[in-house]
Amino acid sequence: MLEDKNPSKTSLGDLGEFALIDHLTQSFSLQNPSSVLGPGDDAAVLYHGKDPTLISTDLLVEGVHFDLTYMPLKHLGYKAVMVNLSDLYAMNAHPQQITVSLAVSNRFTLEAIDELYQGIALACKNYKIDLIGGDTTSSITGLILSISVLGSAPKKKLVHRKGAQENDLLVVSGDLGAAYAGLQVLEREKAVFKVNPNSQPDLTNYAYSIERQLKPEARKDVIDLLDELQIIPTSMIDISDGLSSEILHLSKASKVGFHLFEEKIPIDPEVNLICEEFKLNSATAALNGGEDYELLFTVKQKDYEKIKSHPFLTVVGHACEANAGCQLITGLGHQIELTAQGWQSFSKEDLS
Amino acid sequence: MLEDKNPSKTSLGDLGEFALIDHLTQSFSLQNPSSVLGPGDDAAVLYHGKDPTLISTDLLVEGVHFDLTYMPLKHLGYKAVMVNLSDLYAMNAHPQQITVSLAVSNRFTLEAIDELYQGIALACKNYKIDLIGGDTTSSITGLILSISVLGSAPKKKLVHRKGAQENDLLVVSGDLGAAYAGLQVLEREKAVFKVNPNSQPDLTNYAYSIERQLKPEARKDVIDLLDELQIIPTSMIDISDGLSSEILHLSKASKVGFHLFEEKIPIDPEVNLICEEFKLNSATAALNGGEDYELLFTVKQKDYEKIKSHPFLTVVGHACEANAGCQLITGLGHQIELTAQGWQSFSKEDLS
Repeated sequence: MLEDKNPSKTSLGDLGEFALIDHLTQSFSLQNPSSVLGPGDDAAVLYHGKDPTLISTDLLVEGVHFDLTYMPLKHLGYKAVMVNLSDLYAMNAHPQQITVSLAVSNRFTLEAIDELYQGIALACKNYKIDLIGGDTTSSITGLILSISVLGSAPKKKLVHRKGAQENDLLVVSGDLGAAYAGLQVLEREKAVFKVNPNSQPDLTNYAYSIERQLKPEARKDVIDLLDELQIIPTSMIDISDGLSSEILHLSKASKVGFHLFEEKIPIDPEVNLICEEFKLNSATAALNGGEDYELLFTVKQKDYEKIKSHPFLTVVGHACEANAGCQLITGLGHQIELTAQGWQSFSKEDLS
Repeated sequence: MLEDKNPSKTSLGDLGEFALIDHLTQSFSLQNPSSVLGPGDDAAVLYHGKDPTLISTDLLVEGVHFDLTYMPLKHLGYKAVMVNLSDLYAMNAHPQQITVSLAVSNRFTLEAIDELYQGIALACKNYKIDLIGGDTTSSITGLILSISVLGSAPKKKLVHRKGAQENDLLVVSGDLGAAYAGLQVLEREKAVFKVNPNSQPDLTNYAYSIERQLKPEARKDVIDLLDELQIIPTSMIDISDGLSSEILHLSKASKVGFHLFEEKIPIDPEVNLICEEFKLNSATAALNGGEDYELLFTVKQKDYEKIKSHPFLTVVGHACEANAGCQLITGLGHQIELTAQGWQSFSKEDLS
């Protein structure tokens, strides 16, 4: 029944994560008046009181989402919390509670799990989050971590993926591609270590990117800044899968197209150097690398004055009519359509 | 770092689930005014409005919590939801939303996952629950399912594990041990099937117990009945790990002891027959079997008149002073202390 040997059956790999979620959830409709927003945004929204409660959840599987060869358990705990907090910040909301469920094989000692929880505790301390529950069980192989985050926002301030309108400015926080660049370095060091376990790599030149990969920070500061600047974005999402994929999500939900200017994409100089070393296009790292946990949002043109000089906000493009699709405008003025799989299938020449 | 080869390190198996959760969460304190109750009850409690919001979460791992040899995926989906709803009913609250996170290996087809979701959808329909979010990802081996449930209760009606007082009556819903008895039958048929894949077992005589194992129902009806009878239990828990373990939880949280009368434990005649067939003590099945998802609660003596004649409520004992501990009173009047590991280490003679 379960084995994928029947050619008339559909393999999950053919479908992809987003299509699978759409497929599985399409037949469910919301029945309770307290359920306001179901699957399809960064977090679900419910009303058990006057203001909305938000919940988001992530499942992290060893060997799929993390590699303990180079990911210290303390960092894993920290990052797992950040990934979840980021989903709530992406709705302009404030996370307050998490639940942590853990399945571990007996390969792990209590001391190892303690390290993981030290990272979770540090994240909770830094972001003022309460650990309120969870589940702990054994697994057959490896470590599985499921975290849910709860929070709230004043109803008026809640921001969704939908809401962007034509001519709105497309803004990104911080810089992109560093987490992906850091991953390349770590993967290379892992390969070197396998050949020579005594190698002592000097990673000083890669410190920023490695930190972005191993210990990212969720952008609470950006949410606080927007509040201070009295800006409520018209739409917002966090960058977990790469800029390209997230722009397409905003486009689909808001029913607008986007123009994204390649030369505006903020990339740290270290990332450019790493990409040169690895013979990668750094825009590719930004567009398809993912795991940056920066915020991508749209604002009204009238808000441009408020954000234009801010060091960690960059206008990278604007919304346009839906029929125009989502276009990357290269330095030479070529237009390349962003696709759900990213645009790595296009030749590099187009992007130089 | 991770391998459990160092004798000075602590193996997780030595510690046990409850001690592990206590250990991991003891250093966390609640910081947000909206966080009211953290780990240690059936669900956590938070206030994002006037009345409390509750959340509970469970992680189910193939090969640890379920065996797909005899557990159809549709039933698994249904049961996984029930397990979570039961945690909220155990606090006299009404579940309203769930999130479902899924990690699947490519051994599963889309059609297989659809079956799982059909079970989840049926559970949502029967209990008026909204699926509001989740995460879907790949796993290295097998199926992992993480479900969180959210709900609410009027503040006055919320019931915790703590609250039982001396002389309160100990009440259980339905009957116990059937899920465990059903599991014995299924495990036997699995062994037979391995030897003779063409065997066609007649399971008619075991139908009730097998259904209790494969497709349990959470006791929403009991919560509704208590409401109708205008009874608010003084403490409550659901029976997931066995009557013995749950009594100990109530005892620890409420700081009282309990007398449990063996002869009062409600056991279905079919369970008695199966236990005879498998040479098991049926009280053992009730005390240590688990997975019954019945409710165990305490009420004031004055409420006895309201419940005494109800077909699915049974008074099985009463609370006593904490120093007396938790005692099983056998038919012959012997007292046997209930322990966290249950009492299977005691000789059967004491219990006949």
